[in-house]
Amino acid sequence: MKLNRTFAIEPLSMECTADLQQKIDQKTKPPGSLGVLEQIALQVGRIQNTLTPELRKPHVLIFAGDHGVTAEGISAFPQTVTQQMVANFLTGGAAMSVFARQHGMELLVIDAGVNAELPAHPQLLSKKVAFGTQNFRYQPAMTSDQCEQAINWGAEVVTHIWENGCNILTCGEMGIGNTSSASVLLSVLGDIPIEACVGPGTGLGHSGVTHKIDVLRAAIRHHALQPDPFAVLTTFGGFEIAMICGAYLQAAERKMTIMVDGFISTSALLVAARLYPSVLEYCIFGHLSEEPGHQSMLELLEGTPLLRLNMRLGEGTGAAVAYPLVESAVRFLNDMASFESAGVSTKS
Amino acid sequence: MKLNRTFAIEPLSMECTADLQQKIDQKTKPPGSLGVLEQIALQVGRIQNTLTPELRKPHVLIFAGDHGVTAEGISAFPQTVTQQMVANFLTGGAAMSVFARQHGMELLVIDAGVNAELPAHPQLLSKKVAFGTQNFRYQPAMTSDQCEQAINWGAEVVTHIWENGCNILTCGEMGIGNTSSASVLLSVLGDIPIEACVGPGTGLGHSGVTHKIDVLRAAIRHHALQPDPFAVLTTFGGFEIAMICGAYLQAAERKMTIMVDGFISTSALLVAARLYPSVLEYCIFGHLSEEPGHQSMLELLEGTPLLRLNMRLGEGTGAAVAYPLVESAVRFLNDMASFESAGVSTKS
Repeated sequence: MKLNRTFAIEPLSMECTADLQQKIDQKTKPPGSLGVLEQIALQVGRIQNTLTPELRKPHVLIFAGDHGVTAEGISAFPQTVTQQMVANFLTGGAAMSVFARQHGMELLVIDAGVNAELPAHPQLLSKKVAFGTQNFRYQPAMTSDQCEQAINWGAEVVTHIWENGCNILTCGEMGIGNTSSASVLLSVLGDIPIEACVGPGTGLGHSGVTHKIDVLRAAIRHHALQPDPFAVLTTFGGFEIAMICGAYLQAAERKMTIMVDGFISTSALLVAARLYPSVLEYCIFGHLSEEPGHQSMLELLEGTPLLRLNMRLGEGTGAAVAYPLVESAVRFLNDMASFESAGVSTKS
Repeated sequence: MKLNRTFAIEPLSMECTADLQQKIDQKTKPPGSLGVLEQIALQVGRIQNTLTPELRKPHVLIFAGDHGVTAEGISAFPQTVTQQMVANFLTGGAAMSVFARQHGMELLVIDAGVNAELPAHPQLLSKKVAFGTQNFRYQPAMTSDQCEQAINWGAEVVTHIWENGCNILTCGEMGIGNTSSASVLLSVLGDIPIEACVGPGTGLGHSGVTHKIDVLRAAIRHHALQPDPFAVLTTFGGFEIAMICGAYLQAAERKMTIMVDGFISTSALLVAARLYPSVLEYCIFGHLSEEPGHQSMLELLEGTPLLRLNMRLGEGTGAAVAYPLVESAVRFLNDMASFESAGVSTKS
């Protein structure tokens, strides 16, 4: 099983790194005193290969899909919530809708594979691979063709927003049951025992978590896969996760800045990074989720989150609430005076 | 030595706490999944005693003052930088100027005691107590009358912005040498050895830090004070620190939300909280500064910072970059749909 589509992802240029650092150090502040914001300014400058980066038309793409494995009773909420929440995103009542409005981010919902016909809406893109995945407890969640299609369609959505002038995005997700996929991806790709990868998701109690672990352990044994990223994604993923994987890879190819959200979307990045490690150079990690496996994912990816606010909502919310910090980084780089321009004395 | 001015600070009302929590729990998200943002929403709702809090006319007040103790060579930058940075704030080139513009915060600079005549400017308020404090190595930084005046003037500035409709503020500061004051306040009020309270400030090297510790230890021994908050503030504080103390107390009296910045402004809060512990109920801690003593201050005040970004710039910047998180909290509380209004199913 192999992904046919290829992505042309370049490592970040070193070209203006020294000049960016010098520009940062000449701002009217003690050197280094803006901490992580200085690192972000440097990274975004390098991604855009300029001393004057801009954040243009920020987008939130919420990929929604259903999961056959919900038949095993692994979620606290019924599957129908996926489609109900899609409606909630589109009418503006979800957390992600609120934060997108706050930060001037354009929000699009992508039907990657919701188990219902969804009414048309200007902010809804139909990329439905199927009406939900198969139950991976007993069979692969997708065919490899479906997985490839999802990756391609995720890339297509990113090309679309890029052509409209967007250069920074976050991918969110909605899909009852998708913490189960993310947990298995972490366990198999990270070689971590499944019990260390499973959490309460949307709110399982202790016995629910134990049952979820049992189901996922049995599924992993059933398929007995090697840690091949495309095969693992096909077998245990979700359509929304595969689409996010494609979205990230295409965003990196287009030299866009990627703001990574929580447990589910980071599982898509785990796959993407196994295929193309350079994708990580384009990523800013918005937050550390309270879902316990997220910490392990960030360790595997050597990612440092901007926020640690005990959030565990998904949808892109953890990345979205961190967005103003990236904006602060870009703004100080562009708008702060230098010691020379402001006539401020340097160190004694 | 005693502060004559009194403040009428009420503990937060419990009146709408249960209703606020219920409103938060009925939003379309797993209960608790917005983490710290839910705590902030609850706190701001309780401060304003309403289920529909609003953030109105956010202000940044930058209090600037000079310090006689700079004569001991305890700062990496010359004293003249204080007045140069005031000019930089007013012309919009400082980090705090940039972040205030980003977040629509009104910025005022208060001359609390800069060692220079400052040219008039519409955003500059003159509350100059003196041309800098005395060198506290050998004599008290202020007289008790000066300290009381600074506290009163800080309160006056807050009353002024409150009358103009502001209900949330952050206090920043500028004053070469003021980490020395903050370190001594922490050491004496927190009963912590001075060497654990001192850091590099704007950028001292190892020998500079050692010298700073020696100077401050000698000053503490010279004055041999009990940990009386007003006496310690008078003896070791700065005009800007005393004014921030007064500003915090008045803000709490007016039931405003206070966003606390870093090491210096938290030292003012340490004094304020010793005088009126209830002030803390009105405080949101913006960030943990990289200046090492800040962690100890937050522990003393039992404060949890929103951000940990290794920033150590002061000016109010750590609180300002955290401001959108408070806005996110208030917005989700007001604008998110409930399970009922959105027609989303609750837990199975």
